[in-house]
Amino acid sequence: MRIDGKALAAARREATAEAVQRRTEQGLPAPVLAVILVGEDPASQVYVRNKENACRKAGIEPRTWRLPADTAQTDLLDLIAQLNSDPAVHGILVQMPLPKHLDEQAVIDAIDPDKDVDGLHPVNAGRLASGLPGFVPCTPQGAIALLESAGLTDMTGLKAVVVGRSVLVGKPMAQLLLERNATVTICHSRTRDLASQVKDADIVVAAVGRPELIQGDWIKDGAYVIDVGINRVEGHLVGDVQTEEAEKHAAAITPVPGGCGPMTVQMLLENTLLAARRQEETAR
Amino acid sequence: MRIDGKALAAARREATAEAVQRRTEQGLPAPVLAVILVGEDPASQVYVRNKENACRKAGIEPRTWRLPADTAQTDLLDLIAQLNSDPAVHGILVQMPLPKHLDEQAVIDAIDPDKDVDGLHPVNAGRLASGLPGFVPCTPQGAIALLESAGLTDMTGLKAVVVGRSVLVGKPMAQLLLERNATVTICHSRTRDLASQVKDADIVVAAVGRPELIQGDWIKDGAYVIDVGINRVEGHLVGDVQTEEAEKHAAAITPVPGGCGPMTVQMLLENTLLAARRQEETAR
Repeated sequence: MRIDGKALAAARREATAEAVQRRTEQGLPAPVLAVILVGEDPASQVYVRNKENACRKAGIEPRTWRLPADTAQTDLLDLIAQLNSDPAVHGILVQMPLPKHLDEQAVIDAIDPDKDVDGLHPVNAGRLASGLPGFVPCTPQGAIALLESAGLTDMTGLKAVVVGRSVLVGKPMAQLLLERNATVTICHSRTRDLASQVKDADIVVAAVGRPELIQGDWIKDGAYVIDVGINRVEGHLVGDVQTEEAEKHAAAITPVPGGCGPMTVQMLLENTLLAARRQEETAR
Repeated sequence: MRIDGKALAAARREATAEAVQRRTEQGLPAPVLAVILVGEDPASQVYVRNKENACRKAGIEPRTWRLPADTAQTDLLDLIAQLNSDPAVHGILVQMPLPKHLDEQAVIDAIDPDKDVDGLHPVNAGRLASGLPGFVPCTPQGAIALLESAGLTDMTGLKAVVVGRSVLVGKPMAQLLLERNATVTICHSRTRDLASQVKDADIVVAAVGRPELIQGDWIKDGAYVIDVGINRVEGHLVGDVQTEEAEKHAAAITPVPGGCGPMTVQMLLENTLLAARRQEETAR
């Protein structure tokens, strides 16, 4: 079974739109997501446009700052400080990667953790690791929703293998699976015999960005496979998993494209709505 | 081979004492560790006295606040705020557990992360998960030092199994092993077939607090075993591992007591010295 990420994202966006609608009826403002895009990177421009469109469809107001590629670090930090202190702005997203002269970590650190709807701030990583409420990065949060949508609602005692240890995907993914009582193994480029790790897994999450690294016949019969990778090979997109072969063994698998991508955008919308709600609660 | 945690801690304390001595010769003050003990819990009193003694032997000045068991939350938070803003205090340690009427998480959150030498603050958990400098909890940091002292300096590609997923030990332990390029599996109370996980491990870290849960014959020949557990059974202390049987298979294993315990205290001293150095750098 292929898990339809587009359909799940559309259904959840509907629910988000309804929740925003109910807010409006109560006299609450639309959640506002500030988006900062520095420079002209074509892929980043596409991503930002997709996010803006998704926001609008859900009734969330995107406010985008398109800054020149030579923007100074201090100017960017000033803008973030201004957005942090603006009560009308609920979420702040800085589109990565930034031009090389800018210090990405310093920029992330400057965002108010309570407006960090991308879940990039170390404070949010720490809250996740400590079991405290915060913002969870969108991609792993979407991956959990995809597993649940495929019927895997109880992960207790299952063996989960996360391939990739990035701050944005692999590490928070491991935390989320651990919270759900899975036994979690984190593999990476230095792992010996990746095949035998994957062959043993009830849940496989591939997030390494290496086209079809995970061979289809490594997948255990009945396993659940989430393919986070999006790799461009000879003009078309492939994941980190050999999808067709893996599908013969897996109980469920996400396709590329149309799996994790749409859900990542949807979780951004849900995080923005959550940010608005939390800020209103704090203000009360 | 038994890893002698007492000897390693003593040798490192010597090095810490020398570093503090060199600071004194340069006209820098002794590092100061503020210790807060609330109530009369006998075990906590012993722990605090041990830490005070270890500090003094290394030339670190302990300043202990012994507060009555009925101390109000606001008074405790006021004291922490005062210690946070006191430039003469480099590290702050609140001895856990606190009496039940106090909110432990709120107390931890109140400590300045840059003085949080226990590494308990979510900001420090986040820094660790994000690969940023911060304070690492003392027990897992000591466990790494114990592995290295036994000759295991390159953990690349080794299979590490961490049994236990606590915020204080299991989770940061997994991060530290991952940083060192091990393939890391986190097991816990809901793990199915713990034996088969452990049997496959080159490195085993047991931190669950269940006496001799890890059977000796589960240990792979040549594995390195760190036993964090300290359990009182019929008047004497045993670890989470069946030490004698495990020793027949392991390349190296820590005893209980005399393994992780002394190193946890020593890492507190090293964290306090580090805190003093960092605060001096920031002040410059």
